[in-house]
Amino acid sequence: MKNKFQIKEHFWTYYQNLIQEVVIPFQEKVLNDKVPDIEKSHAMENFRIAAGEAEGEFYGMVFQDSDVAKWIEAASYALMLKPNTEVEKKLDNVITLIGKVQQPDGYLNTYFTVKEPNHKWQNLQEAHELYCSGHMIEAAVAHYEATGKITLLSIMKKNADHIYHTFGKDKRRGFPGHPEIELALVRLYRVTGDKRYLELSQYFINERGTSPNFFKEEKGKRDWSVWNSDPEQVLYTLNQAPVREQQDAVGHAVRAVYLYAGMAEVGKETGDESLIKACETLWNSITQKQMYITGGIGSTHIGEAFTKDYDLPNDTAYSETCASIGLIFFAQKMLEATLESKYADVIEKALYNCVLAGMSLDGKKFFYTNPLEVNPEYAKKIVGFEHICAERPGWFSCACCPPNVARLIASLNRYIFTETEEAVYFHLFIGGELDLSESKKLKIQVTTEYPYNNVISYRFQPVEAAVTTTIAIRIPDWSETYQLIVNGEKLNAEQKNGYVFITKKFVENDEIVLQLDMMPKKVYANLNVSENAGCTAIVRGPLVYCFEGTDNGGTLANLRISKDGKIVEKKNNSILMGGVTTLEIDGVRLHAEDALYSFRRPMQETCKLTAIPYYAWANRGENQMRVWMQEE
Amino acid sequence: MKNKFQIKEHFWTYYQNLIQEVVIPFQEKVLNDKVPDIEKSHAMENFRIAAGEAEGEFYGMVFQDSDVAKWIEAASYALMLKPNTEVEKKLDNVITLIGKVQQPDGYLNTYFTVKEPNHKWQNLQEAHELYCSGHMIEAAVAHYEATGKITLLSIMKKNADHIYHTFGKDKRRGFPGHPEIELALVRLYRVTGDKRYLELSQYFINERGTSPNFFKEEKGKRDWSVWNSDPEQVLYTLNQAPVREQQDAVGHAVRAVYLYAGMAEVGKETGDESLIKACETLWNSITQKQMYITGGIGSTHIGEAFTKDYDLPNDTAYSETCASIGLIFFAQKMLEATLESKYADVIEKALYNCVLAGMSLDGKKFFYTNPLEVNPEYAKKIVGFEHICAERPGWFSCACCPPNVARLIASLNRYIFTETEEAVYFHLFIGGELDLSESKKLKIQVTTEYPYNNVISYRFQPVEAAVTTTIAIRIPDWSETYQLIVNGEKLNAEQKNGYVFITKKFVENDEIVLQLDMMPKKVYANLNVSENAGCTAIVRGPLVYCFEGTDNGGTLANLRISKDGKIVEKKNNSILMGGVTTLEIDGVRLHAEDALYSFRRPMQETCKLTAIPYYAWANRGENQMRVWMQEE
Repeated sequence: MKNKFQIKEHFWTYYQNLIQEVVIPFQEKVLNDKVPDIEKSHAMENFRIAAGEAEGEFYGMVFQDSDVAKWIEAASYALMLKPNTEVEKKLDNVITLIGKVQQPDGYLNTYFTVKEPNHKWQNLQEAHELYCSGHMIEAAVAHYEATGKITLLSIMKKNADHIYHTFGKDKRRGFPGHPEIELALVRLYRVTGDKRYLELSQYFINERGTSPNFFKEEKGKRDWSVWNSDPEQVLYTLNQAPVREQQDAVGHAVRAVYLYAGMAEVGKETGDESLIKACETLWNSITQKQMYITGGIGSTHIGEAFTKDYDLPNDTAYSETCASIGLIFFAQKMLEATLESKYADVIEKALYNCVLAGMSLDGKKFFYTNPLEVNPEYAKKIVGFEHICAERPGWFSCACCPPNVARLIASLNRYIFTETEEAVYFHLFIGGELDLSESKKLKIQVTTEYPYNNVISYRFQPVEAAVTTTIAIRIPDWSETYQLIVNGEKLNAEQKNGYVFITKKFVENDEIVLQLDMMPKKVYANLNVSENAGCTAIVRGPLVYCFEGTDNGGTLANLRISKDGKIVEKKNNSILMGGVTTLEIDGVRLHAEDALYSFRRPMQETCKLTAIPYYAWANRGENQMRVWMQEE
Repeated sequence: MKNKFQIKEHFWTYYQNLIQEVVIPFQEKVLNDKVPDIEKSHAMENFRIAAGEAEGEFYGMVFQDSDVAKWIEAASYALMLKPNTEVEKKLDNVITLIGKVQQPDGYLNTYFTVKEPNHKWQNLQEAHELYCSGHMIEAAVAHYEATGKITLLSIMKKNADHIYHTFGKDKRRGFPGHPEIELALVRLYRVTGDKRYLELSQYFINERGTSPNFFKEEKGKRDWSVWNSDPEQVLYTLNQAPVREQQDAVGHAVRAVYLYAGMAEVGKETGDESLIKACETLWNSITQKQMYITGGIGSTHIGEAFTKDYDLPNDTAYSETCASIGLIFFAQKMLEATLESKYADVIEKALYNCVLAGMSLDGKKFFYTNPLEVNPEYAKKIVGFEHICAERPGWFSCACCPPNVARLIASLNRYIFTETEEAVYFHLFIGGELDLSESKKLKIQVTTEYPYNNVISYRFQPVEAAVTTTIAIRIPDWSETYQLIVNGEKLNAEQKNGYVFITKKFVENDEIVLQLDMMPKKVYANLNVSENAGCTAIVRGPLVYCFEGTDNGGTLANLRISKDGKIVEKKNNSILMGGVTTLEIDGVRLHAEDALYSFRRPMQETCKLTAIPYYAWANRGENQMRVWMQEE
């Protein structure tokens, strides 16, 4: 199956090519332990051992299977971008292998099959069995959508059936320590139409938090553990209250947003307004009080977790790439459920900043954590900074982020628009062609040099002579003004929920042009964010900018942005991929004594500062970086 | 024995009375488990059990004995301030008990005697046996100096002899995981004249760092541990290199400064210039790159440790009260060895700020950690802030700091002056009488309302008609100008090593008056201290000021100090003990939107800010506090 929206533009085509040509082949080699000098994966070998095709011990994380699942999912999306018989065959082979690992009752997990065959389903808190199933279900759905094959889908239906027969109100009670299967089951329900999967997802969501002692009691019933986790840390496992009563986003950030995404999906599918309302409350908790300007979430590396409102340290931020991807999942589900632009605003913010920063420009290295200030003197060198890298490392033993980036970018086509009966909503500004020939009898050509240019053109090609419909285009929250030009004439269109609506009888070559306000702007954080006191950050359109030592004389601590200075846009084609707009900003450089403390206020001289997009940082060697800069 | 310098003035008499009348009696009750509703001490009961006078198990930290030792030391100093037969009798009783605990070979430690009799001296890394002996030796010396009694001194000589016979180059090798005995042995040497104690101290100092694997090998030889500490954390145990090669102050801050104090003592006593030089290097590492403006040290609670140069977070600072007291010990030894004022500057800074902040104004509650910014919403509530208290708690199970404050303040008389053959040096500005009748045939009356008033008067009363000598008075580093007035006439005296020198034939009622520059001043941190970017702190004389919510409308995050505003001194007798000078500072209050991020720079209105001395914070209920404030 092809995507309805085909991306054809400079920016994202580059990244999607990278995923297809670099990331997915590389990850496949990693999973098969064919890449030297990186941490061993062993993920495929675990499957071969579990299938009886190889000898050996299980190796890796308890959730190692999910690396394979995420690779299958990403590779399947990549097939929808461009057919690739070699990849398709590799997928067939992996799926055959997975089929051999599956137990007669449908159970599927190499850790337990190989290492702990008598301990299945005894440790929902730590053991990630439902999590791994969830990822493999997502992989199965994606593989089916991409190829039309039901090979993996059948395996995972059988696995889901097994889980359905195992868990429930009148069966074994429980819910996953790490959410993921909730949203996966809704996807499975959508492609199969089997209501039991939706029901099972509902069960897991509704069960959570009804018994805060659940994991404690579970632990009391077994004499083994994976990490000897504290079962009373109910915030970490999001078990502090029934989900509809949870007010604040807390605990492990990835787990949280995966759960909320599942809640939004179930809410939408079942029309359960109470779930959508709970999601809105949790959404506000994240985006109004706990989110970095980059769309990063999770302020602390301890528990990879949310902390408290307005606690957003820049230099020790966890801000995991996976958490921002999870936030995008959550946002997308809410966007689909409500069609309010604020969700798309956050998708865009997280995507163009935190998530893209997670991958090097050559697609070969990955950040797991995305701080907003880095000093290589401290990174990895002092306590509290163990998780901070000044450059992207290669593959980690806990390889969650790289395949997550791959599956998001390879499926980005699904985040661009929404088709409803009445209208076509454009959420993201990405160039390409939307083919609605079958439904709306319309094709729409989107042309833009976004995110560096403020103009987006929509050109219409009805399949019939003329087609009447409504086009809704998002006006991003960062664009303080905008102009809408329809066939050369300015239009004052109705705006609602963050979208402008143009209802028209569209004929060949009709064109809507949106011009956004992409002037560089200074941003100020809420005064309660004490880390950013006296600071400003620079944004331009959807991009957050940052300052690197290499452009600014090495040290950043002695630089200030001038309060009333200019910001000049520059093109820089040399250092990064073509067309990047850098910013030259009026600033001052401070000079002070060497003393630790002095009565003398530092001297100032004016200077020019250079800022580059945050996503592109750390591609030119180790150096200092910061997003928030003191204003002077 | 009486102190040569008797303190007679408002400020320190208040604190010394508090120590005598509140702290020491309270601590004695705590050690005997007679205070309800606090964590059990059991320290005295451990001695009774070890002496065979009570039944029961050892309870408490492996170094619980040191609480008793520090109390004896503090109570002995208190006897030198004011005789107290009741306290003296209590001391006699405790010492009798300690004598009964001592083993025939001189060994003395209740933990091992009661709990682990077969494990003596097997775990120098963790078990604190040498540390406890060190504190008890200091107690014995203080008790002897205060009372002339050799009861405890004899016990501890026997204990030191046992240690001397156990450890050494050709005996059992080793050195303490927690330094303390090094400096104690020098004190024991000074009162006994027995060179073996000095030699043993030298041995421990020289042995450290010669074998970085020492604790690893030690651990390999036993099958038990106290905390299962990692023996390879050589920084924590200050075992990374021989002490003369150590360049940076690292590891556990209290251990570090106790070690350096011992090194300085040995260096001075043995004339070992290489040790003094190493101490100077480590001193510079602390005071030029790793010390808070309050004299606090230890940037992180993880390992209670130093981190890296210029890493001085305000809100998560560990800055343990004990570490600043240890820094004062180190400084005093260096001051005695060099007579350079920079050491006295730091004694004063740590004493009037971090250390005094460690105790509530009523002497009943104690801070163990002394951050420079506290938000009660975060303190103890989020990860990384577990150690931060918004109010002083009572007694902790690890009760190191309160008795350390008590012994420092009760012995403050020893820090005020140094007598050499040629001169009398005045280091601290404390009112009272210095009686040098026996040596210099001179008494000197010091009158001052320091630290709130800038005038210090020295009035001379020779025992004979006239006495020729040199008076050296410290000019503090914070005083940018000063005036010296001798018998009403201005004097331009020679200044060297931070002291002014006045050599004169002193007759009755001669008076030297020093007027310091005590104008409130703004301080700026080194630009590398990123936490303080854009900030200023206010000091007046030796006092660092801070802002509390209660004086400034609750929240501090929206306040700024005006760049060119005035600072007005006020007297405030109502809230704190009489005579405190508070400061009224021109500032601005910011008003901003509720949004997490905004394009609008916050609006400003001028306002007055109130600052109080840092040491006095958190005496009026839980509220926000900060030392460093953004300048606008």
